[in-house]
Amino acid sequence: MTFSAATSVTGRGDGSYAAEIEPGWDIFGVTNGGLLLALAGRAMTEESGRQLVSVTGRFVNPVSSGPVEIGIETLKEGFSLTTLRGMMSTGDRPLVTFSGSLSGTATARASAVMTHGEPPPLPPPEECPRLLPAGDAPLPPPFAGKVECRLHPDDTTLGQDRPGPPQVRGWFRLTDGELLDPLGLVLASDGFPPAIFFSTLPIGWTPTVDLTVHIRDPGPYEWVSCRFTTRFVDGGWLEEDGEMWSQEGRLVAQSRQLALVPR
Amino acid sequence: MTFSAATSVTGRGDGSYAAEIEPGWDIFGVTNGGLLLALAGRAMTEESGRQLVSVTGRFVNPVSSGPVEIGIETLKEGFSLTTLRGMMSTGDRPLVTFSGSLSGTATARASAVMTHGEPPPLPPPEECPRLLPAGDAPLPPPFAGKVECRLHPDDTTLGQDRPGPPQVRGWFRLTDGELLDPLGLVLASDGFPPAIFFSTLPIGWTPTVDLTVHIRDPGPYEWVSCRFTTRFVDGGWLEEDGEMWSQEGRLVAQSRQLALVPR
Repeated sequence: MTFSAATSVTGRGDGSYAAEIEPGWDIFGVTNGGLLLALAGRAMTEESGRQLVSVTGRFVNPVSSGPVEIGIETLKEGFSLTTLRGMMSTGDRPLVTFSGSLSGTATARASAVMTHGEPPPLPPPEECPRLLPAGDAPLPPPFAGKVECRLHPDDTTLGQDRPGPPQVRGWFRLTDGELLDPLGLVLASDGFPPAIFFSTLPIGWTPTVDLTVHIRDPGPYEWVSCRFTTRFVDGGWLEEDGEMWSQEGRLVAQSRQLALVPR
Repeated sequence: MTFSAATSVTGRGDGSYAAEIEPGWDIFGVTNGGLLLALAGRAMTEESGRQLVSVTGRFVNPVSSGPVEIGIETLKEGFSLTTLRGMMSTGDRPLVTFSGSLSGTATARASAVMTHGEPPPLPPPEECPRLLPAGDAPLPPPFAGKVECRLHPDDTTLGQDRPGPPQVRGWFRLTDGELLDPLGLVLASDGFPPAIFFSTLPIGWTPTVDLTVHIRDPGPYEWVSCRFTTRFVDGGWLEEDGEMWSQEGRLVAQSRQLALVPR
């Protein structure tokens, strides 16, 4: 099943949408946060007829697969930005509360460009090993089979003792020849193993508390090169910052999530 | 008026709160986003009886001063985290949609600590010039008089052509001897002039689209040392990342906002 089919929603014309979480997009049996946020983004995109610029999801309860309801409220339809908020739930059980800003125009309000950063240095995709589900072990998870995530050859060994902040770098694309649009970039932002898996910190369930994705250029893209970094683990929390770059070397999206540190 | 008085809320026992936005917490006549988010955080803190860990606000319409309504929904009361969402509005006009995760315990779930970063190198507060309102010019804004923001001596000149990403560093504390709690840290996260003002980019109204603050240690603190950095200006958008550090050199909060690039 393609990503766009897995994130399709059926609107009822009153801001409410029905959707189905397909099996297999999970990690430890819990559906990937990026997929849920992309589903929320799909509903906001359809509701507004605009393109996603910024989305935040706060994850309330875990969900495996099955039907969900998405309720959207349009808070403001502005000239440059439309603002919405919404809730994804199953029955009385809230799953994700989210909000988003969507743009109606591809014309930037200001033309200034400044870049202090570089795409991760990556060999071509075919020289980066693809992450594939383990099948009979929890990691890599079933989710890995739903996307094409190719890791930097130096970032394939879990539990490495390396200098510098924990990071994971690699290429990301959708399967079935689908291109990455803003919703695909939301998926990419939570589509890699946690950066801390490539450090000496404990490896385990790293639940996302909140995830924000900012889209700088809607694309579409076949491949994006990605870098995820965690600089601070403290108080039981960690942040993971993501950058997604086009093959032409332009930053096209940024993400940050707060997650619980595995025990 | 103290910060805690300026962010006081009156609950009605049904999840709704009345509050008053005091005059003077504004920039170009628009109330500071950090103050609004602190007000939202205050209502969530009172509603849950817990302490703020993470909050996201998405700014819908600007507001100057006057009465506002805050409606809070409790989505989940968990053992480790309580999740809420809410809306701040005046009449039918939505101002801020927000969500938060609050913790009931000061005991971290995991004890791992890892730090890849350092507090900004700052002279003692008394050697850093205090930002004060201009009075008869728009910048520095009236807001500057409500807090004590002391800038790194190298970060006091607007429009500098410096190498590296635009940044602003300095000390932050509340006035009237009040200490910084999680809500004070939320204020600090939006309490400095935009980092891009200290670069050759245009200086002007830089409206926040969304702001997320993650609290790593609730404090309280008299002073925090802060660094705000913008690495990417593109597509009409910029991100500003903030770090707040205790005087003992511990990262106590992180923030990220998406803002519109001034024209």
